Amino acid sequence: MRVRVDLMISLDGFATTTDQTPDNPFGQDWSRLVGAYAATRSFRERVLGDANGEGTTGIDDRYARDYFDNIGAEIMGAGKFGLHAFPDDPDWRGWWGDEPPFRCPVFVLTYRPRPPLSMAGGTSFTFLSATPAEALDRARQAANGKDVRIGGGPTIVRDYLKAGLVDHLHVAIAPILLDRGVRLWDDLRGLEAGYTVMSEVAESGTLHLTYRR
Amino acid sequence: MRVRVDLMISLDGFATTTDQTPDNPFGQDWSRLVGAYAATRSFRERVLGDANGEGTTGIDDRYARDYFDNIGAEIMGAGKFGLHAFPDDPDWRGWWGDEPPFRCPVFVLTYRPRPPLSMAGGTSFTFLSATPAEALDRARQAANGKDVRIGGGPTIVRDYLKAGLVDHLHVAIAPILLDRGVRLWDDLRGLEAGYTVMSEVAESGTLHLTYRR
Repeated sequence: MRVRVDLMISLDGFATTTDQTPDNPFGQDWSRLVGAYAATRSFRERVLGDANGEGTTGIDDRYARDYFDNIGAEIMGAGKFGLHAFPDDPDWRGWWGDEPPFRCPVFVLTYRPRPPLSMAGGTSFTFLSATPAEALDRARQAANGKDVRIGGGPTIVRDYLKAGLVDHLHVAIAPILLDRGVRLWDDLRGLEAGYTVMSEVAESGTLHLTYRR
Repeated sequence: MRVRVDLMISLDGFATTTDQTPDNPFGQDWSRLVGAYAATRSFRERVLGDANGEGTTGIDDRYARDYFDNIGAEIMGAGKFGLHAFPDDPDWRGWWGDEPPFRCPVFVLTYRPRPPLSMAGGTSFTFLSATPAEALDRARQAANGKDVRIGGGPTIVRDYLKAGLVDHLHVAIAPILLDRGVRLWDDLRGLEAGYTVMSEVAESGTLHLTYRR
């Protein structure tokens, strides 16, 4: 059982964008940040349900495939689930439609209680007000021996990194400068000391860094 | 004639370190930031005058060799020359000894007038109070058709990048987190739009990004 993170950031370290509008809740920068990942065959199959075998099949796709492999539970922040964009909508069920791509128990950290949701395809959403370590205990039990993903956003990921709870961190860096948003790397001086770091460049120009214990 | 920058930064974007002491004017982080570059055969030959052929000969060395190729003049900030560390020493002649590795005219941007220095091996230091564009005009004339390097620190480099005056930017990213210092990337949103960006990973784990017009 490992605790894993996969995150996409810009070269200047921003993991979220700030150009969201009501009409475009992810913002235009988002598509540039996640473009190489969204272009992969594995993303298209797993997230978009596209069975036509389209999409890239190179290094980015290898990471996209690994992303979904052997995950038994996920922990995510309220923002990733959409509770900041839709705080007062009791019927909000996330961004991912009736059959979300997680296919495992997902624990959403939020101070506002909400009843759990059971979705098609094996995904459930449970809303927790808990510390990172407490949420990890819950997720670990639910994961049944498989890995637990800390799904983001960057503030949650940083909390887990600072608490020393992450075993495997994969960061995909898009070679673009956003200059605003939430920084992943703040207050993580010397993080590399506890890990072996491996780097490679994908055909898309995306830089992949992997931190392993 | 191109205007070129080569800079080493940490993964979180810091190009200078802040752990300097009177006994260690570069700070301990500095050796981690520039370690892969300082280990190359080209650096050892050109900067240390080590003719034993020692040092690495891989991808980092290719960049270190290119660093010195076809440079006709350099512009640097007062901090790089050492005027912040030794502001009141009229005999200060830079960090590099009697025969600095530049071997070309060097223009040091500073508000405090100082007489020019002529060093062994073809290096001269001229102290200028000038705008980035004015200093570039001076350096361009001195470069005699060769390239002009903007040598740093990061604040000077950022001034030139923001002014759109840089043709070729090479950034070597050490996969370490410093969490303090001067950030290279601040206020450069969308810089990549004017360039073709090429990335590769060296044997040392250093990430090399090159922005070409």
